[in-house]
This record gives sequence, structure tokens and C-alpha cells, in this order.
Amino acid sequence: MIKALEDDLSQTFNIHFKNHDLLDEAFTQASYVNEHPHQGLKFYERIEFLGDAVLQIVVSEYLFKRYPEMPQGKLTRLRAAMVCEASFSDFAKECRFDRYIRLGKGEEKSGARQRPSLLCDIFESFIGALYLDQGRDAVERFVRIVIFPKLDEGRFDHIIDHKSELQELLQKNGDVEIDYELISEEGPENDLTFTVSVIADNQKLATGTGHSKKVAEQNAANMALQKMRGK
Amino acid sequence: MIKALEDDLSQTFNIHFKNHDLLDEAFTQASYVNEHPHQGLKFYERIEFLGDAVLQIVVSEYLFKRYPEMPQGKLTRLRAAMVCEASFSDFAKECRFDRYIRLGKGEEKSGARQRPSLLCDIFESFIGALYLDQGRDAVERFVRIVIFPKLDEGRFDHIIDHKSELQELLQKNGDVEIDYELISEEGPENDLTFTVSVIADNQKLATGTGHSKKVAEQNAANMALQKMRGK
Repeated sequence: MIKALEDDLSQTFNIHFKNHDLLDEAFTQASYVNEHPHQGLKFYERIEFLGDAVLQIVVSEYLFKRYPEMPQGKLTRLRAAMVCEASFSDFAKECRFDRYIRLGKGEEKSGARQRPSLLCDIFESFIGALYLDQGRDAVERFVRIVIFPKLDEGRFDHIIDHKSELQELLQKNGDVEIDYELISEEGPENDLTFTVSVIADNQKLATGTGHSKKVAEQNAANMALQKMRGK
Repeated sequence: MIKALEDDLSQTFNIHFKNHDLLDEAFTQASYVNEHPHQGLKFYERIEFLGDAVLQIVVSEYLFKRYPEMPQGKLTRLRAAMVCEASFSDFAKECRFDRYIRLGKGEEKSGARQRPSLLCDIFESFIGALYLDQGRDAVERFVRIVIFPKLDEGRFDHIIDHKSELQELLQKNGDVEIDYELISEEGPENDLTFTVSVIADNQKLATGTGHSKKVAEQNAANMALQKMRGK
């Protein structure tokens, strides 16, 4: 079973574990160890303890550097939304980690394989194992594929609020007039797409689209921020 | 004022900041910035956000490696006792950080300089600044002086329980009989010192002392663990 995981990691992420026991440990629940008492197996919990802290620092440092103007309160809320059971459980499923967990029979029957708390644990323990096996750089490469793009995809926009962020950045050195201008409304009545431009002191900064004016404005502000950061 | 901090860090910890602004930021509270609006000052909160995560990973990795047999639950309790307001506020005072915080007048009057929550924040922001200025190795050197020795001094023994740990380690590969033998009770009636040896299968492993039999036994078990780990 874990061979299939190694193949998957290799093909999907170009990750190759040196210490295969670590990877086994990261995907093995205590219930499985209890059912196989003479195989000298270990379960994931200790590695998960480490992985949790690794994710905290990697995400914190990324947010700190990516949002140089964001105040601590918002950084903390954003980190909490990214580093939480719901997010990690989704990431684990996206990575197909649910397929490879070694569970005891009772746990399997009770549906543990799809339980968010277990999927979250396994995501953390995988990160812990990757860190122990290959160091922080390997973890960074992995989260740059699996976690950080979610920021650009708008998954955490309810916390980030690009419009406020753009306003803070533009008005840092004095007053700037910021307007959002509706450029077009297109598509069928029940599936409209709005296009909005953001304009600062009569200069167009960027354009964004969305299925509501509100989302289109946020996307326009986000595009402007990315341009200003040279992305 | 911050010059005095730089001298203190240099003499006490041989730490020399390259980016002096970072160190200033780490020791400056928002109330001080508000009272000096035209100096372009920053306050510590963003750096504290980062420092918090740096301390989590440094302490977690140390505990994970130092206690290879400790189950996750105990690791988590131990980390929570080390990485908390009460501990960080004590560490900040030991490092004399309270002297160097830049506070607004109102905060100063209300006694903020000795408030545990502020001292904790400043300890974290100092770590964040050190990390940004000199990287993780410098943080590790610092916490090896300021935090980790507290484990050997017994500050967290109420959580660690060396006796249980020694028992787990010794009985890992089968039954071992463990005894604690009182060797002596010395000193004046109101300040007795107990000396206890720990014996496994009739072989003396180590000896510990303390002002109660319980503490002496914990210290003996801790000494035995340190010997077994080749410390």
C-alpha cells in the first residue's frame, strides 16, 4: 500500500523519500499498529506534533513576507484560516492522502478515512516526515504547490480583503482617490460576469472579473496589488 | 535607550544585530509610535507574529529529538508549558528585556512594563527580529542558553515525570524491576536533603537529591535518563 503512495508522491510532486519507515509511520494510525502488534510499527502522532510546528513557521514566514503592510491581527486570522483542520483536511484529499492511510478495521468501518480530523492529522504528519527526511526546503517546495496558490485563487479572500489592503498601501504616503468602475456585465442573466477596473487618482491600475460586482472588485484590487509587488 | 540593549545583548549573549531598525521595532509598543507620529517608527506586533511561530518550531524540534520515546500527548503538554505567556514573560525578565521596551506615557504609568502579556510579546518579537536578522541558527544558540536549560533545572518536571519516562524506556523490551532506594536524609529538620538511588534489576543506575523524597526520585530518574542518552 505504501509503495503506491511512494509512486504517487514521485509522479505528482517529484518527492522521493530516503527513509521509507518515516513515510510509513506518517500514514499509520494507532489502530493499525494495535492490530499488528509484532511488526514493530509506529503510528503518526509524534511526527504530526512536529509537522504542525513546521507548517506554522512555513506559512507564517510566507505571509509575513508576502504581505509587508498587513497588520498582525489580519495576519493571525489569515494564518488561522490556512492552518486549520478544515484546510488541512481538504489539502490531504487533494493530495489523495486519504487512499494511503493505514487504519485498523474498526476505524475503517466507522468511516475514519474520510474524517476531517484524521485527514488533518495525516497532512501534518506527512509534512513532519518530509521535514525530517529532506529538510525545510523540501517542505517549502511542497506547500508552494499545495497551499500558497490557494491565496491567489481567492480561497481566503473573506479574510484578506484586497480592497482594504490596496487602500492601505496606496494611502500610506498621503491621500489617494480610489475608484472601482464597472466596465461590463456579460453572459446569460443567471450567470453574469462582471468586469471592474480599479482606478487610483485617475490612473487605471488593473482589471478583475467575477460573478458579482463585489468579487470582481476584490479581484481587481488583488491584481493591482500583485502588479505593485512585481508579481 | 536601544543602544543600551545592543550593549547588553552583545555582552550577555554575544549577539550583534546587523539591522538595528529591526531590533528597535521589536522593542517598540504601538503606544510609543502613537506618541512619536513623525519618526516613521514601527511597533513590534508583526515581528511578534513571526517570532511566535519560530519559537514553536525550535522548541518542538528540540523536544521531539530530545525525548524520542515521549508520546505526543506529553510532548504537546510540555511544549504548551514552555511556549506560553508565563514562561516567556519570565524569560524576558531574565534577559532584562523589560528595561528596554519603548512605551507610551500612559502605558508606562499603568505598569505595562511589568505586565506578563507585554513581556511575553516582547520575548516573541525579539526572537522574530533575531530570526529575520541572523536566521534560525542564531535563534537556536539563544534558546539553548535561555530556554532549554530549564528542562534540566526541573522547571517542567511536573509535566515530564522522569520516573514514568525511565520506566517506559527500560521496559520497552520486556519487564525490568525498578526500585528507588533512600540513601540518606541530611541537614536541619526544616531543610532536609534526601538522596535517592534508582536501581534497575539490582543495578544502580544513578543518584539524585532533593528537598523531598519525591523530588529526589524524579532527579535520580532524570540522571539515569541522561546517562542512558549519553549526556
